[in-house]
Amino acid sequence: MYCWLNGTLVPLATAQVSVQDRGFMYGDALFETARFAGDRVLRFDAHWQRLQTAAAQLRFPMPYDGQVIAAACAELLAANVAAQSQGVLRLQLTRGRGTRGPNPAGARDPVFLITQSELPPMLEARRARGYAIVTSRWQKPAPNMLPNAAKTANYLNSVLAFEDALAAGADEALLLGATGEVAECSHSNLFLVAKGVLVTPHAASGALLGTMRAQVLAMARQLGMPCEERAVSAAELEQASEAFLTNAVVGVMPVARFTARAYAVPGPMTQRVWSAIKEIDGESAWVS
Amino acid sequence: MYCWLNGTLVPLATAQVSVQDRGFMYGDALFETARFAGDRVLRFDAHWQRLQTAAAQLRFPMPYDGQVIAAACAELLAANVAAQSQGVLRLQLTRGRGTRGPNPAGARDPVFLITQSELPPMLEARRARGYAIVTSRWQKPAPNMLPNAAKTANYLNSVLAFEDALAAGADEALLLGATGEVAECSHSNLFLVAKGVLVTPHAASGALLGTMRAQVLAMARQLGMPCEERAVSAAELEQASEAFLTNAVVGVMPVARFTARAYAVPGPMTQRVWSAIKEIDGESAWVS
Repeated sequence: MYCWLNGTLVPLATAQVSVQDRGFMYGDALFETARFAGDRVLRFDAHWQRLQTAAAQLRFPMPYDGQVIAAACAELLAANVAAQSQGVLRLQLTRGRGTRGPNPAGARDPVFLITQSELPPMLEARRARGYAIVTSRWQKPAPNMLPNAAKTANYLNSVLAFEDALAAGADEALLLGATGEVAECSHSNLFLVAKGVLVTPHAASGALLGTMRAQVLAMARQLGMPCEERAVSAAELEQASEAFLTNAVVGVMPVARFTARAYAVPGPMTQRVWSAIKEIDGESAWVS
Repeated sequence: MYCWLNGTLVPLATAQVSVQDRGFMYGDALFETARFAGDRVLRFDAHWQRLQTAAAQLRFPMPYDGQVIAAACAELLAANVAAQSQGVLRLQLTRGRGTRGPNPAGARDPVFLITQSELPPMLEARRARGYAIVTSRWQKPAPNMLPNAAKTANYLNSVLAFEDALAAGADEALLLGATGEVAECSHSNLFLVAKGVLVTPHAASGALLGTMRAQVLAMARQLGMPCEERAVSAAELEQASEAFLTNAVVGVMPVARFTARAYAVPGPMTQRVWSAIKEIDGESAWVS
């Protein structure tokens, strides 16, 4: 298995970065997780756009342009063609080697890394039964604590929340935001259906502005499905007629249980959204 | 310049870690920043205690015991003896190489790294004039978003806040917590003197439980100085008779200005606290 590290294909097992890299020292890094099918990276443009925008917002260097990174993904997939026909590409950008402390000025030698990995195990079996989710003890930082238009390597909040899911024997953990509203799950966005309307927590909740979340919203608006980004309470999630999670890797994942509440899997709106996404991407992109 | 990497002295310039290390991928790491003077690491036990407690709380592996790490610090300082007679040791622990995603289970080969670096430039000149601080646009995550008894490599919030200080031409940036109270500065704790009482924001504010903060509190209680850990408002900071910042590297740093408010530098209580700390550590530890 190879990875792509600053322009070079390197065996993943031996690929290394400096201990002075600010990504290693301080999580001072951005990343993207994209699904691939064959030689195609799903929603590459959306991932690239978010990475580029976040880099500009946080004043990261951006050593490559989108064409170079698209070609790098293709080169990596070709080199690893024996590994998986479907899987995950992870892109990471750091500020590079810096000095000790919060000041990122003067960092040099940014790292751009692309790694390839397998899909989560038994994904389609889990999609068929739906996810069980529980509420985490951890809350999601607000957008004025950590920017949520950027996917950053400050990921400990997600790690801790996911451990709450594991401890409860659940598949995912729901995080409330600073105001007590529903924000998102540890590594997926949440949608629910309330009185026939597709609803997802608004950006002010602290939810990551996910690429699949954006795709679902854009598709729903295009198809004329009623949908809203707004504040959502945990009580409203309990009363919802159906719920699902989204991210770039699992696509649309039905929620079967939220604590004591059970939902039909998949609900009719969930089914409709998922079918529409598969139509956009091509059914073959999601057969694994 | 050498660093100590998992039991071996390695030239810092060439020391590397795997790109699969969760510290690099997700900021899934803990660190400590300690000051040294000659062959002595100030408050080593307090740093070690926090690191060990945080590792246990967050279920990190701990591949070495305190005696080994104390000896490693001594070995590193001896190897770098030509570099600095006073400076900073930074200890970092990661979960090691893991799989993609939030689940840290199955990570292996944890990294324990010790690096040495210089003191910040012109520290004593800056101490003589005192720091100017401004309020950051960024808020500090609450303790139920990121644990504040642990010093984690999820440091982006501090990076962003410090950039606000730089943009304002200030030395440090003050962060309010989730409730709007004063929490801390980007990489230092805050103390103020209100009606003759030494006050620092309580842990609920999200302030890191700093080693120098703990030392100041312990010393004040031992000397019978009135002191409180409690909620502090920005208005109260403006009305304070004096204020200072603490961390392991700068010790006690007087605040000269908070936005438009100017304080005497050093205030009498600040001077008393700083003298007591230097007495505990030995004056020579702080002559640079």
